[in-house]
Amino acid sequence: MSGDEQTTKALVVFTPSGKRGKFACGTSLLSAARSLGVDIDSVCGGRAICGRCQVDVCSGEFAKHGIVCSNDNLTGISKAEARYDEKRGLPAGRRLSCQAIIKGDIVIDVPPESQVHKQVIRKRAEARNIKTDPVISFHYIEVEEPDIHKPSSDLERVYRALRDQWNLLQVSCDLRILSKLQAVLRKGEWAVTIGVHHRLPGGISQIVSIRPSFHDSAYGLAVDVGSTTIAAHLCNLADGKVLASSGLMNPQIRFGEDLMSRISYAMANPGADLKMSEEVREAINMLAAQSAATAGIDQSDILEVVLVGNPVMHHILLGIDPVELGRAPFTLATSMAITRPACELGLKLPAGAYAYLLPCIAGHLGADAAGVILSESPHLRDEMSLIVDVGTNAEIILGNKDRLLACSSPTGPAFEGAQISCGQRAAPGAIERVRINPETLEPRFCVIGCDLWSDDPGFSAAIGSIGVSGICGSGIIEAIAEMYLAGIINKDGALDGSLSVKSPRIRANGRTFDYVLNDAEPLICVTQNDVREIQLAKAALYAGARLLMDRMGVDVVDRIRLAGAFGSHIDVKYAMILGLVPDCELDKVESAGNAAGTGARIALLNRGARDEIEQLVRKIEKIETAVEPRFQEHLVDAMAIPHKRASYLKLASQVTMPATGDGGAGQRGARRKRGNRRVTARKSD
Amino acid sequence: MSGDEQTTKALVVFTPSGKRGKFACGTSLLSAARSLGVDIDSVCGGRAICGRCQVDVCSGEFAKHGIVCSNDNLTGISKAEARYDEKRGLPAGRRLSCQAIIKGDIVIDVPPESQVHKQVIRKRAEARNIKTDPVISFHYIEVEEPDIHKPSSDLERVYRALRDQWNLLQVSCDLRILSKLQAVLRKGEWAVTIGVHHRLPGGISQIVSIRPSFHDSAYGLAVDVGSTTIAAHLCNLADGKVLASSGLMNPQIRFGEDLMSRISYAMANPGADLKMSEEVREAINMLAAQSAATAGIDQSDILEVVLVGNPVMHHILLGIDPVELGRAPFTLATSMAITRPACELGLKLPAGAYAYLLPCIAGHLGADAAGVILSESPHLRDEMSLIVDVGTNAEIILGNKDRLLACSSPTGPAFEGAQISCGQRAAPGAIERVRINPETLEPRFCVIGCDLWSDDPGFSAAIGSIGVSGICGSGIIEAIAEMYLAGIINKDGALDGSLSVKSPRIRANGRTFDYVLNDAEPLICVTQNDVREIQLAKAALYAGARLLMDRMGVDVVDRIRLAGAFGSHIDVKYAMILGLVPDCELDKVESAGNAAGTGARIALLNRGARDEIEQLVRKIEKIETAVEPRFQEHLVDAMAIPHKRASYLKLASQVTMPATGDGGAGQRGARRKRGNRRVTARKSD
Repeated sequence: MSGDEQTTKALVVFTPSGKRGKFACGTSLLSAARSLGVDIDSVCGGRAICGRCQVDVCSGEFAKHGIVCSNDNLTGISKAEARYDEKRGLPAGRRLSCQAIIKGDIVIDVPPESQVHKQVIRKRAEARNIKTDPVISFHYIEVEEPDIHKPSSDLERVYRALRDQWNLLQVSCDLRILSKLQAVLRKGEWAVTIGVHHRLPGGISQIVSIRPSFHDSAYGLAVDVGSTTIAAHLCNLADGKVLASSGLMNPQIRFGEDLMSRISYAMANPGADLKMSEEVREAINMLAAQSAATAGIDQSDILEVVLVGNPVMHHILLGIDPVELGRAPFTLATSMAITRPACELGLKLPAGAYAYLLPCIAGHLGADAAGVILSESPHLRDEMSLIVDVGTNAEIILGNKDRLLACSSPTGPAFEGAQISCGQRAAPGAIERVRINPETLEPRFCVIGCDLWSDDPGFSAAIGSIGVSGICGSGIIEAIAEMYLAGIINKDGALDGSLSVKSPRIRANGRTFDYVLNDAEPLICVTQNDVREIQLAKAALYAGARLLMDRMGVDVVDRIRLAGAFGSHIDVKYAMILGLVPDCELDKVESAGNAAGTGARIALLNRGARDEIEQLVRKIEKIETAVEPRFQEHLVDAMAIPHKRASYLKLASQVTMPATGDGGAGQRGARRKRGNRRVTARKSD
Repeated sequence: MSGDEQTTKALVVFTPSGKRGKFACGTSLLSAARSLGVDIDSVCGGRAICGRCQVDVCSGEFAKHGIVCSNDNLTGISKAEARYDEKRGLPAGRRLSCQAIIKGDIVIDVPPESQVHKQVIRKRAEARNIKTDPVISFHYIEVEEPDIHKPSSDLERVYRALRDQWNLLQVSCDLRILSKLQAVLRKGEWAVTIGVHHRLPGGISQIVSIRPSFHDSAYGLAVDVGSTTIAAHLCNLADGKVLASSGLMNPQIRFGEDLMSRISYAMANPGADLKMSEEVREAINMLAAQSAATAGIDQSDILEVVLVGNPVMHHILLGIDPVELGRAPFTLATSMAITRPACELGLKLPAGAYAYLLPCIAGHLGADAAGVILSESPHLRDEMSLIVDVGTNAEIILGNKDRLLACSSPTGPAFEGAQISCGQRAAPGAIERVRINPETLEPRFCVIGCDLWSDDPGFSAAIGSIGVSGICGSGIIEAIAEMYLAGIINKDGALDGSLSVKSPRIRANGRTFDYVLNDAEPLICVTQNDVREIQLAKAALYAGARLLMDRMGVDVVDRIRLAGAFGSHIDVKYAMILGLVPDCELDKVESAGNAAGTGARIALLNRGARDEIEQLVRKIEKIETAVEPRFQEHLVDAMAIPHKRASYLKLASQVTMPATGDGGAGQRGARRKRGNRRVTARKSD
């Protein structure tokens, strides 16, 4: 290098972005990166404290760039950098880009963990990845000390530091933070780390955390408030990683298993809605504490919570009486997304923490459905997706990048094991897999919480104290599909009583017949009425999907996604045999996991996703099944099992037959692992 | 009138504004007024419900306008108007301008009570009047009912109604209101009155009240949180009228009479600041309830509260530990104005009610000083005003429209009767007026709660159970000034012990002498030390004022305003004799009443006043007396009583001498009326 170093310009190339520019020698790598718009993180503002701006210095000859690099083209390790290395460790070859000063041409690689907008890779290949861009940013500032000769308030000087050191203008301060401001400033000896929320009503940026010295730990909670369970994922806001997941039964179950009974309870008992609010809020508080303990983090570092839930849960959580959701025309108080101080929702998070609720879509399509859409992103695809989330109601979404339709279909709680004679929630002891030998009509089954099939040697010993207590949603689907494949029921769902002479498993029960799954204590049967309940539920689900397809003007869909716990545990082949969903290539039908919870996580980690879903829900065309005459027609048509048994040979052949052993091992294995802790977070991906 | 009525245009003239325009026949008077920008109120949006748009129709010939008016040039009383008249009564000749339709040329007078921006006339002639323009506006809307075929949330339809019926866009809704929305809409059968707050952080307009049907009662509370008393004025937001005033002792008195002792208590007792917060908040809740009961209004119609207070009270009210205000450099947590939900301040006002705190100026110049400035408006005047608000500290403001200076001077609590041997707070039993016969040196005095002078016949009987208990701030000022005029003390404040031979009122007390005011039980004396305390206090006050005058470069001021309780009760002539304030024409020295409380009331009633004071405080030059060397010089210089007794002859002649009887009747009368309820709101004007 020749001439005056101060005025010489050097070429700097950043990979992997390829952004490049000439900079005066003496410029720091961080400044160079910033002026080129290269995405490098920093919380401490160039003070060698946060270590987020680490880069790799490339050496060698880069013919492409016409650069010969050597470490000599940067200043050596600075004192501050050496201190950081000593305290927190710096990998070999890494530099803090705020400390390394350009002396000559150089190529710099920005590793993924140093980017502000990190990619959170989702396991399922087809799922879109999440880019971290949380609503809260952190800023280490050094605040001017008060001076009696120039009186100014502490807050004024904090604002000034944010302006001068971070170019943050027009920031306001939460009163709850303001009340701690003076003590924290003095504790941190006028150096503090400020958290600023950038997406509050009115578009204001507000200080939501202030912590002494450098302190950049920040976590968020994504919560799926289901009717039955409440599941929470604790995420690191910096890199999007899930640190802990936990789940609890929704304590409101004591007010009624399903939503309608809870609404009825609220109608009959004035003030019950407030009691329900309290209980659900308390459950979320427990999950927050539990997750923090599991992850070994300080609960006071949980600075945001994002919540999804069906409309009833959404309203109850907000302290809105859900009574209007229980009667036509099923009117929501509000469908808009909500950003409120977490304390207003009774959540015991640190002062300044905010809660965000995704928007609702319509009276039966809640923030959970919005979460599913955000997670599945049908609106970003060319293919026509059908997404089904089955609970007491099924939320059904159909569409692609051009158009999105949604409806809710009253499947009733049969798919959750309710209204089934021996039905129960998916919990240890529940039959979840069923195979029937078409020759002997003898069944074998699998129970949640036990690894063995009922005809495996040692089953009795293995089942032990769990016992066999009932049959859950996926179990009843398999049982009825297997009964159909074995010829025990016909396509209209009628149980063939004449088979009772052939097998003791077919038994008369008054004027109809039962199929006995477990002939021990307790006796577990599938009754004619159980078959009817499932037929009704699956017809409702199918009819809802058909209605949307009619409206969309399509006869087939390109892919089907089954969301929620039911969708995760059901064997899609059996769902197809019974005709729960319209025809589709079997390999295009997949579980979407807990898509609602994933949607909450996306909204937690990415502020743009909030804009996206808020704008999108306004464009979704809502179909109210209750007033669509064609819905009833479809429902009646869909009662039967769709096709001749023969036409399902191909499907059936994919269903591992009992004789070949190990039926549905993958599915069973998945459930087996969770068997003893069914009521936990439904990890989605 | 000729031709087609629909296309003919008529000339309409509105008085008193004189605005005029041609309108198509068929236009309502209200529409015509609006399009001309004539200030006519309306809450019901032209539905003949609110009756706020009443106008007088002028008849006769208006040569000036070239109009011959007759009632025939308007349509007759409409059905809706007749219903209003029947229900609420319409004065003769009055029309609802929303119902009266233009048929021909007409002159319309808009009475003051129909204007949106009503003038609240303040009694004191020199005070600026208040224009009502509250931050909350009210809008009667008729909301579309929900339709199962076109699902939309209730809130969406409310927003739509506000947009379509009132042209209000971009409104948000408080969560606390949202939770009531559905029930209120149904109770009001889809007609509700919405209150919208237009001055929240981020500039958003937010729904802060929703009430069934037409309901336009709305009140606000202006509260002055003083160290000793808390006073509240309940105002009608529509016309600005004060409906009730009430006051309470500040319950924090048990933590210390003056602010410093409360801060010390907070320092010594962790958590005490929270306890103090609770108590002051509870006191405000009591005042709200009390005011509502007195005025006979529903407390749930109090939709806003505006608060002023010194920095310590301001911080405690907000839940901010005041500890930093008790030690140099006396740093405020924040000096900015604060708008927060009233519930966050622990105030039991309806959901949606907001609290507004005026900005602070500096560590010793609080929101109360800002209130004084707003009320006194020195920044709108050409004259140089000196405004003094005396409490434990004196807040001193000097300036005019060009420049404003402010400081706080540590007068100590002597002016409040503390640190005086027989001193007490102004309460029944306290001596408040004193006259001394310069010949005999015999005193006579007046006591709060009793109409008679101590030498009036029947005084003993009249004083009855009140008794004589001590001497209050204004009493000690008069006593010392009279002692000076009678030659008992000299200009240096030394008590002339040699007079003890002439009068038994002068008595030795160790090495110094006392002057005995009340020679009965309890003995009430003015000691040499009392004189010193008052000298120190008045020197501090004078020195602060001088410091500002030096900085401003003026030797005299054009007017002096004495604010606060002390300023209201002190006889300004005695204040001048002792030299509490710089020289000024006596008739230019006046009490400003409870200017801080009036400032709160102005901010409550007028949103523009909030912008005004928030901008103004930033421009005020703050002088910190503690670090100004000249302050100490002025203080020492000001210890003496300013001039020779002779030069005060003119002043003294204006002070009614004892011999002439009835001294200071006006002042005494004023206090007399209040005597038995001293601790009540300090009505300002």
